[in-house]
Amino acid sequence: MNEVDLLRHIQTRSATPASRGAVEIGPGDDAAVIRVGDEQVLLTVDHLVEGTHFNPIGQVPPDAIIDRIARKAVARSISDIAAMGGTPIASLATACFPPDFPQERANLLFDRMHAWAIRWQAPLVGGDIAQSPSRENRPHDALVLTVTVVGRPHPARGPVLRSTASPGDSLWVTGRLGNSLRSERHLTFEPRITESTWLCSRSSSRSGRPVPSAMIDLSDGLGRDAGRLALASNVRIEIDADAIPRHDDCRDWQAAASDGEDYEILFTVPPETDLSAMLQATGTPATRIGIVAAGEPGCSVRTGADTTIDAASMGWDHGTH
Amino acid sequence: MNEVDLLRHIQTRSATPASRGAVEIGPGDDAAVIRVGDEQVLLTVDHLVEGTHFNPIGQVPPDAIIDRIARKAVARSISDIAAMGGTPIASLATACFPPDFPQERANLLFDRMHAWAIRWQAPLVGGDIAQSPSRENRPHDALVLTVTVVGRPHPARGPVLRSTASPGDSLWVTGRLGNSLRSERHLTFEPRITESTWLCSRSSSRSGRPVPSAMIDLSDGLGRDAGRLALASNVRIEIDADAIPRHDDCRDWQAAASDGEDYEILFTVPPETDLSAMLQATGTPATRIGIVAAGEPGCSVRTGADTTIDAASMGWDHGTH
Repeated sequence: MNEVDLLRHIQTRSATPASRGAVEIGPGDDAAVIRVGDEQVLLTVDHLVEGTHFNPIGQVPPDAIIDRIARKAVARSISDIAAMGGTPIASLATACFPPDFPQERANLLFDRMHAWAIRWQAPLVGGDIAQSPSRENRPHDALVLTVTVVGRPHPARGPVLRSTASPGDSLWVTGRLGNSLRSERHLTFEPRITESTWLCSRSSSRSGRPVPSAMIDLSDGLGRDAGRLALASNVRIEIDADAIPRHDDCRDWQAAASDGEDYEILFTVPPETDLSAMLQATGTPATRIGIVAAGEPGCSVRTGADTTIDAASMGWDHGTH
Repeated sequence: MNEVDLLRHIQTRSATPASRGAVEIGPGDDAAVIRVGDEQVLLTVDHLVEGTHFNPIGQVPPDAIIDRIARKAVARSISDIAAMGGTPIASLATACFPPDFPQERANLLFDRMHAWAIRWQAPLVGGDIAQSPSRENRPHDALVLTVTVVGRPHPARGPVLRSTASPGDSLWVTGRLGNSLRSERHLTFEPRITESTWLCSRSSSRSGRPVPSAMIDLSDGLGRDAGRLALASNVRIEIDADAIPRHDDCRDWQAAASDGEDYEILFTVPPETDLSAMLQATGTPATRIGIVAAGEPGCSVRTGADTTIDAASMGWDHGTH
């Protein structure tokens, strides 16, 4: 079972008009959009599971490990808000601890989650803890965290969806990609709130279409996530392998496109959009890596020669690895 | 470690002005209250952990078990919204499955959570799934669910807190208490949204003070939860043992006050408040079970003789049992 299946599953079930109520965007994008009175609210939740999203931490994890886990737990959900062009405003955290987890370590974990949540303007306003049951003759269960983040869409741009890219748009990505797990960048990345907000305050010079035209954050790898954006927008995405910005410790474009856990934002803009001021305004470069075309929905990568590779099956799935 | 400690812990850390932002009520009540533009939003999240909140379900749980777990997972968080006098509007669900959990059973679980969420007007708008890692030679990890519910306060009454009971108020409870676990009512209770909303539309005939003056839902037992309300309001609560409404299968008042998992609402009202129409309006009786007095903050139960028992230590704690 994987997350894509789940989201498709809920999405299908949510499509009946009777169940929509205040829901403007249900499951299937980086965050949901609901209406509360005159306001739109973004909602997202993500897991962080020991042994799946971070290495097993043992009985008494040191401060530095606790801090990094806390950071990643919060940052993953903040990144979902960035992917919608939004601003975080509050968060909720849950932790299901193994029976022998020391209370003082649990307190530190919540302290650090709260500190990181404040850093990203989303103070922890509540939460829940539980303990997995102790059973004889067995090692402890995995530590399971979740963080819910509530945000607001950009006041001018509104929520940026995955499904609104158009043929002719160009495809961009922030920062650099690849080797996030081995380098431990997956524990220390900076969610792209500043960059996303800056983008939402642009507009296309010629067409007047909103910028960005579509956006997603890269959790499962460029190939897979670009494929999702392409399918949601019903367009063909063509990525130039040589243009993919790689970290120095990332060996080749295939790794950059498939390692996953980059938490950069991938977005499309009308072709004439001027993003030359982005680096100076936000401190983060953005690179044009491809184009949006009409054609069979999906994503391919062009290498130097005329070779074209189907990118949608690249990357990894949190649910199965 | 228990939930009270955690909430106190976050609450202490949240009290610094720098971290408040849009937060009106942080951790420590049944739900948080945040401000989004001109709107107030209620936020709550609760766990449901196999072996802690429901019995182990085995490798391929039958439909009826899946349905009851789904129901309880959603209903616990809906009950928190009821305890604030609010109306649910949307929910998010997470599930961390053991590695061998069949996908078809996982789909059914989300289907049923979505169905129950719709029943209580809070359609599932998103979620996340994860898998606990498989390790050799060991039984599977516990299934860990969380449900976040977003709600709105009552438009006239506003959020009903635990901390606003006054000496002279009377103490009431909906429905009947006790033996929820053995009878399995803890899996099939109806969150008291209708009753709570009805109460919020009343006002005190004489004082004009808002009704209810304070409220909490009963998850950990009347004694313990009444003690929490008393401490939050800085008042003395005195409960009449003989007045506590018991289920037919609950043996005595001690069990009714301490078994826990009732998910009825406990509330205070100015003494002259007329609640005689509640049963006919909502289908649920409410019973006056005690009074709010000045004095050392806490809760005691008076029995037929002159005996008085400290009630704050009764009940149970999800975090340690």
